[in-house]
Amino acid sequence: MGKIKIGIYGYGNLGKGVEIAIHNNDDMELIGIFTRRNPLDIKPIFSDSKIFSTSAAENMKGKIDVMILCSGSATDLPEQGPNVCKFFNTIDSFDTHAKIPEYFSKMNEVALKNNNLSLISCGWDPGLFSLNRCLLESVLPDGNNYVFYGSGLSQGHSDAIRRIKGVKNAVQYTVPYDDAVESVRNGENPIFDSVRKTMWRECFVVLEDGADQVEIEKEIKEMPNYFKPYNTVVHFISEEELKEKHNSMPHGGFVLRSGKTSPNTNQIAEFSLKLDSNPEFTASVLVSYARAIYKMRKQGKVGAITVLDVPIALLSPKNNEELLKNLL
Amino acid sequence: MGKIKIGIYGYGNLGKGVEIAIHNNDDMELIGIFTRRNPLDIKPIFSDSKIFSTSAAENMKGKIDVMILCSGSATDLPEQGPNVCKFFNTIDSFDTHAKIPEYFSKMNEVALKNNNLSLISCGWDPGLFSLNRCLLESVLPDGNNYVFYGSGLSQGHSDAIRRIKGVKNAVQYTVPYDDAVESVRNGENPIFDSVRKTMWRECFVVLEDGADQVEIEKEIKEMPNYFKPYNTVVHFISEEELKEKHNSMPHGGFVLRSGKTSPNTNQIAEFSLKLDSNPEFTASVLVSYARAIYKMRKQGKVGAITVLDVPIALLSPKNNEELLKNLL
Repeated sequence: MGKIKIGIYGYGNLGKGVEIAIHNNDDMELIGIFTRRNPLDIKPIFSDSKIFSTSAAENMKGKIDVMILCSGSATDLPEQGPNVCKFFNTIDSFDTHAKIPEYFSKMNEVALKNNNLSLISCGWDPGLFSLNRCLLESVLPDGNNYVFYGSGLSQGHSDAIRRIKGVKNAVQYTVPYDDAVESVRNGENPIFDSVRKTMWRECFVVLEDGADQVEIEKEIKEMPNYFKPYNTVVHFISEEELKEKHNSMPHGGFVLRSGKTSPNTNQIAEFSLKLDSNPEFTASVLVSYARAIYKMRKQGKVGAITVLDVPIALLSPKNNEELLKNLL
Repeated sequence: MGKIKIGIYGYGNLGKGVEIAIHNNDDMELIGIFTRRNPLDIKPIFSDSKIFSTSAAENMKGKIDVMILCSGSATDLPEQGPNVCKFFNTIDSFDTHAKIPEYFSKMNEVALKNNNLSLISCGWDPGLFSLNRCLLESVLPDGNNYVFYGSGLSQGHSDAIRRIKGVKNAVQYTVPYDDAVESVRNGENPIFDSVRKTMWRECFVVLEDGADQVEIEKEIKEMPNYFKPYNTVVHFISEEELKEKHNSMPHGGFVLRSGKTSPNTNQIAEFSLKLDSNPEFTASVLVSYARAIYKMRKQGKVGAITVLDVPIALLSPKNNEELLKNLL
């Protein structure tokens, strides 16, 4: 059997993670990386990865089984998704939760019209966490869902600090409160009436020369939505320290269902992640689901779907006999 | 829409759990409980549950959407499964791992021939743990799987002790070693060359009058397969203490994948359960998957399947719009 032919559309941290993940899966081959930048400016991780301009993608129709979209959700995917799924089966990690129904609807319309299959919002949240929310709520209908994020680096919050005038560089970590986590794991079914009670935010900031430290700390802590609703701690450090100690992208978190099956019988199920690299893990999820997309399209499925629509067996390179024998 | 019509086949702890779980799901109705005993001897948990003899089941063909088989794997299911799936869509918790391929093959043959759909080996292991083994191995192909059971009551091991002459009653708990668990959770990728290093067994035994305590302790500890491979601790207690302190059926455990996406990047994913009642939780899993069976059969699917073949969306009573909005 030939290998599954993959394309990478967008080459930031996530695209690089996908390039690595394809090398970890023997049944896949990378046809090319598509970038909006000048292809000559791109240095791929593996020297044999081919680089193309996104403007050339259309010509590759029929030569790529699944195109993995690695752009951001804020402005890129809402436009790129519907354009690319005209020509290819796609998979993306669209993660603006509130806009998922709208994005699904648009992708479904275009993919259906062009006989392609598009899996949207795949990664860990939305993605594997969604899978567990749905699974565990279905098994334990009388209960509460909890989600905690961290400890981990938040790209969006780090960017928000970097946009402040006088800030040279910054990273932000989301950190759950241990006692909140323990209370949930102990089945106490706590009610958190404010996000401030479940997690806090820790910022490491490098200032431009002459910037006002007091003023910037105030500006960070009072930033609406991003920091104001949370307890926020700000550390000012040197550029060297930032590069040395804060150069990886760890993340993690867990989704937990605590539910009763009868009045005094509590049941707790938890799915948790502890990731050294957020983008490499998200990329690995995308690549395993790309395998499923390939198989489902072969079975005739078209339109838009989510992780909730994919039988888990299809993620595996193993056949049914091997799954029954080794994994069940 | 009418409710999903469920039958319970076999009325032990698991069957009672299913009876309770159906009451927790508004879109389901219990048509009847089928027992090999005299139906007049059965007192159901809910007074309106109807009791029938298993010999009357065949006559209910067409009146039950899914029959949930609640018998044991050792001798009952291998015979009952193929018989019942002649007449009904079925779901069972067949858990003799080594014999799953053989059982699947038999169930598939009979279910196909009779246009029924049968989900085998559903529960938490096999079941939700299998789902996570397959999912996480697919996402992190370069890594190790770990499974720990406990702390929890093992029905099979408790029975084994009760069969010893001189033992009046007994319960056995499987307990994982904390340091083994920590090592795995820390991403140390330990290799356990013996089960003795991952968990131990704690037994609470009530003796018959005049039984030889020393002899019985020796007999337990040297029982092949069950206890000999493990560190085993035996406590002798009174019948009163057993009834007071050991009358519930807690269990739990976790399945963990520790894998690398690139040389120095470790990623850890874990699915864990902490259950006050093993049979009630297993029953709740069966009932949510019964919903999926009902939907998949409506879509035309027949034959035998496992949890790996079921899209998670089908477990939920919610429609696609609600899932996109609330759970993704």
